[in-house]
Formats: sequence, C-alpha cells, structure tokens
Amino acid sequence: MGSPAADEDLPQVLLIRNPPAFTIDGEEQFTSAKFRFLKAFESTLPPHDFLAARAQSVRAMLASGGAVVDASVLQFLPELRLIVTTTAGLNQLDLPECRRRGIRIANAGDVYSADVADCAVGLLIDVLRKISACNRYVKQGFWASKGDYPLGSKLRGKRIGIVGLGRIGYQVAKRLEAFGCSIAYNSRKAKPGVSYPFYQEVQELAAKSDALILCCGLTEQTRHMINKEVLAALGKDGVIVNIARGGVIDEKEMVRCLMEGEIAGAGLDVFENEPDAPKELMELDNVVMSPHCAVFTRESLLDVARLVVGNLEAFFSNEPLLSEYEDD
Amino acid sequence: MGSPAADEDLPQVLLIRNPPAFTIDGEEQFTSAKFRFLKAFESTLPPHDFLAARAQSVRAMLASGGAVVDASVLQFLPELRLIVTTTAGLNQLDLPECRRRGIRIANAGDVYSADVADCAVGLLIDVLRKISACNRYVKQGFWASKGDYPLGSKLRGKRIGIVGLGRIGYQVAKRLEAFGCSIAYNSRKAKPGVSYPFYQEVQELAAKSDALILCCGLTEQTRHMINKEVLAALGKDGVIVNIARGGVIDEKEMVRCLMEGEIAGAGLDVFENEPDAPKELMELDNVVMSPHCAVFTRESLLDVARLVVGNLEAFFSNEPLLSEYEDD
Repeated sequence: MGSPAADEDLPQVLLIRNPPAFTIDGEEQFTSAKFRFLKAFESTLPPHDFLAARAQSVRAMLASGGAVVDASVLQFLPELRLIVTTTAGLNQLDLPECRRRGIRIANAGDVYSADVADCAVGLLIDVLRKISACNRYVKQGFWASKGDYPLGSKLRGKRIGIVGLGRIGYQVAKRLEAFGCSIAYNSRKAKPGVSYPFYQEVQELAAKSDALILCCGLTEQTRHMINKEVLAALGKDGVIVNIARGGVIDEKEMVRCLMEGEIAGAGLDVFENEPDAPKELMELDNVVMSPHCAVFTRESLLDVARLVVGNLEAFFSNEPLLSEYEDD
Repeated sequence: MGSPAADEDLPQVLLIRNPPAFTIDGEEQFTSAKFRFLKAFESTLPPHDFLAARAQSVRAMLASGGAVVDASVLQFLPELRLIVTTTAGLNQLDLPECRRRGIRIANAGDVYSADVADCAVGLLIDVLRKISACNRYVKQGFWASKGDYPLGSKLRGKRIGIVGLGRIGYQVAKRLEAFGCSIAYNSRKAKPGVSYPFYQEVQELAAKSDALILCCGLTEQTRHMINKEVLAALGKDGVIVNIARGGVIDEKEMVRCLMEGEIAGAGLDVFENEPDAPKELMELDNVVMSPHCAVFTRESLLDVARLVVGNLEAFFSNEPLLSEYEDD
C-alpha cells in the first residue's frame, strides 16, 4: 500500500461488516493500490447514521455472507454502482432493488463450486456409509466391546435428484456419475444440452430419487421448497443433502421427519438460523452436520480474495468485471 | 432345502468358523439344494480333532475373513479342491500351500470393489474436508459458542498415489478423476493400457503425492511396505487412506507420525490388530476411523451370498467357477 497521503485519494470500498474472510485469510490478501476500505463497523456511529454521514459518494461495496444489503441500506448509497460479494449465493442482497438502481454485482463466481460439490458428495457418502458415526463408534472404543457397526448402504445404482443444476449442481452430478449413481434434476427450466432427466416439480423428483441434493439459490421461489409433501415423496429410505441455504428446507418439518424415521438421513451444511442448528438433530447418528463450511478451504479463500480484488480493480479501471453476476 | 434324509446325500462344505455374513445376512441366504454345511465350530471337539475325524472327505470349504487356512489346517483335508471366500483379500489363506495341493480358490471377485472404492473416497474427503470433525463440533454445540471450525483443504488438483491398481484401486482412481485430482500409482508392475504414471518404488510415489490410498493385497511383499521412509516421503502435508489391510502399514510408525505432525492425517478402515485400533489415534481429529466396514453394505452382502452359493453350486456341478482367483 502507498503512503497515507496517497491513500486518501484512493476510491473507497464500503464494508458494513468485517468479512469473515479478512479474519481467516488476513486482510492483507484483500488490499490493493487501487482502492481503500471504508469500514462502517469500526465507527461508533449507528450503521445508518454512518452511511448517511460518510458513504454518500461511495461507488463500490464489498458484501460478505452475513451483511444484508436491502433497500434500507441502499437508500443511503445513491452513488453505489457495484457490489462485490465473497459469496456465490446472493440471498443477502435485495436483487430487484439492486437492479432498479442499476447496481452491478460481482459474486464469487465459480471459485467455490468444486469445493461445495466435493462437500456435497462427502456428506452423501458419509450419510450412506455412516462414516462419521463409525468414526465415533471406533473412537469410543466400542468396536472391540460391541462388535461391528450397523451396515451402510451402497452408492452404486442410487438415484440422485439434484435440485438446482447450476455450476455446483452440475459438478455434483459429474462426480456422482463416477460412483455409478443415476442423475435427474429439477430447476426453474430444463437446461439445454443436458441429458439428465428433468422434473418440473420437485415433489416428483423426490418421489423418483433415493437422495435429494440441494444446490439451488435461496429466493422467494425456493424458500421452504422442500416441504412436508416433498419429504413425504422422498420417503423413509430417502436421504437429503443440503449445501444450498438452510431456508430452502422447511427445517422444522425435516427435523420431525428425521426424528420419526419418515426419511432415512441427512447431510446438512446449512441451517435456517445459523450458527444455531436444531438441537434435536445433535442426537441423531443418521444426520451429519457441518458448520456452513462447504465453500471454505484454504485454497478457495485465497482464490476468492484474488477474485474480489480483481473485480474491484477492474471496476475502478473501467474494465470488464471478472465474475459479473447475470440474473437469468 | 430338502428333507433331512436327502440332505445326508448332499456334498459337504466345511466351515471352520461361523462366517460373520451368516449372522448379518441370515444363513438362509447361503443355503442351497446342492450342498450342506459341515460346521466345525459347532462341535465340542477341538478344531484339529474335528477335522481329522470328520473332514477327511470334504472337497470344498467356505472361508470368511477371520478363518485362517494354513498348512496346519490343510494337512487334515486331503480331498479339498476348492476354497470359496466371502472376502476379496486372501491373506487368511496360505496361497503357496493351496497351489501346491491343487486347491482352487473363488473369492468375492468384484462384488465389493465399488463399495470399497466409495469408502476410500469418503475417507479421503472426510480427512481433507474435516467432515467427521465438523460434525462432532456442531453436535457438541460449539459452532454458536466458538465460531467457525478450522478450514479444510481442497480436493481439486491434489496428487493421489494409488498403491495397488487392481479392481479397487482402479475404481478409486476413476472416482477421484471426477474430483479433478491427478492420479499416479505403484504396483508390482506397470499395468498395460493404463495411462496414469507408474512408480516402481512406493517411496517415490509417496514423495510425489499429496495423499496415498492403499488398495493392495497383504502379502509378505506388502507387509509394512508403508514404513518410516515412505511416511517421511509423504511428508507433513500428506494424507494416508487405508482400505487394504492394516498390516500394509507399519502402524506403530504411522501412529508416531500422526502424533508428531509428520503426516497431516489419515482415513483408516483397517488396523493391524482388529478389532483393537491404536488408542493414541482416538484423540486425533485429523484421523477418521471405521471398523473394517469398507466392503460392507446391505447390498454387497446379499451380492456376496449369491456369489458364494453360485461358486459352490458350480463346483459341485463341474461347471466353471463364477469368480475363480487367478494368482498373477
């Protein structure tokens, strides 16, 4: 970074909250000679007062997962033209309001897709083959005293329903084909050039699947899409894996189904009220939970830091963004 | 099954120990109208006395994993011409002695390969992405109180060394290619028609790999093949996955390396002294253990029962065996 005097002249990038990636990667991974950060969270002013007083001329902001950017925030940012996110999902943003205001968005693009897909497959194998449960059993010393652990079930031949066949869903499908699983999907519309069977209704997909893997974004259309009827269609031998967003599932209903054996198991990276996960699930061996970390590896966080900086530098240089989000 | 009188005329299949699959699947899955079982383990006689008195004319036996069949057993079985195993690995058999006596062997063939490969990949993902450790962390309620769990590491781009590129090793390789891993292998000799780089020396493979996945049989040549030097070559960022046999690794040395951070982690389905697993590993979050269950799913056990019965019926009908083991 340049001298403080030179810094004063740099364009500002608004931060409402401290992005977790700053803590994990180190903020230096996000610094650039072409911009500086304006940190609302370091001010003693209430957030809206800070924005009103200091952010009137801000043209770009960086929004991490927990930083909600809705009309109540955007009203204070008349000059805002770009939001860069550290996330692939954009449910923290009011997308229609951004569109109305002509604000462009650059998200994490494809940086996380492979890691999220890996995690989805890992959770599925773990639930079907009981890996976490076996690990606990062996580590508690029960193998010698109680004998073999109950059998898991086979991946080959399983019918996998992918809900949301975007970049992540497609990578999940490709991986599971290598395990001999068959793939079908639900999406807003059938994807051109994709040969997997398409189901318009998620309930029908559930009825035809041994496992549902949720890979869609969270929108008003997908909120609680996995409801009582879909879970019933999935059935007592069915497994659900969620690496999308907690709100895609009616969580209360899923908890009930898991506790009453109406579905067979679940691998869950996301929850409706993070970081709180439903207490009832903590006792269940057929539920594997991870703390919304499907996107996070050491490698992917360094990749996203490079992408965030690259997008901001491109914006301030009037060059094309590296990963502009296109609403489709 | 026929009447007791008819049964008396059926050829006998010797069982020295009760196969675990009889308990898990139900013995009825293994019964046939073409043979009957002679159960040494139900006799009050000591095993060798039973064999001497009752098994002189036995032509076939069924050997499960824990039933050692060596020269001390075979000396009592002059008419034995076939051993059918419920296992893919044959380390419970004295193969040179079987060969010398002209005893054919039918093993589990390819029945377990997919499930074992799935488990190997599951263990690798689990270690790299810390799934079991995350699951425990969330279930202990630490996510809300302590925040995010330490980052895992990415599968894509990892260099995977497969030790033993037989049916299982090959299926592991195919799956991991779908994750964007690069594959190399060690085997007794280079496999014709395989394009993965071949390393004659396992130590050299270890030095060029981020993870070693052990898929070889246990023989005098492979016992403790993964020794101090190989583990040092794998290095402090290296991971080991063992779905072969515990004896392939110098376990004491591996435990030391894991405890002292000389390798990064391990996914272990097999151990040197099962069902005892090293107590030191039970405290380590970077070690994922399962109780020698990589082969076991509900589906594969039913498949192996069908194969065992099919091999025995073929033998007694003088037809080709379904899965004859060929020493190569």
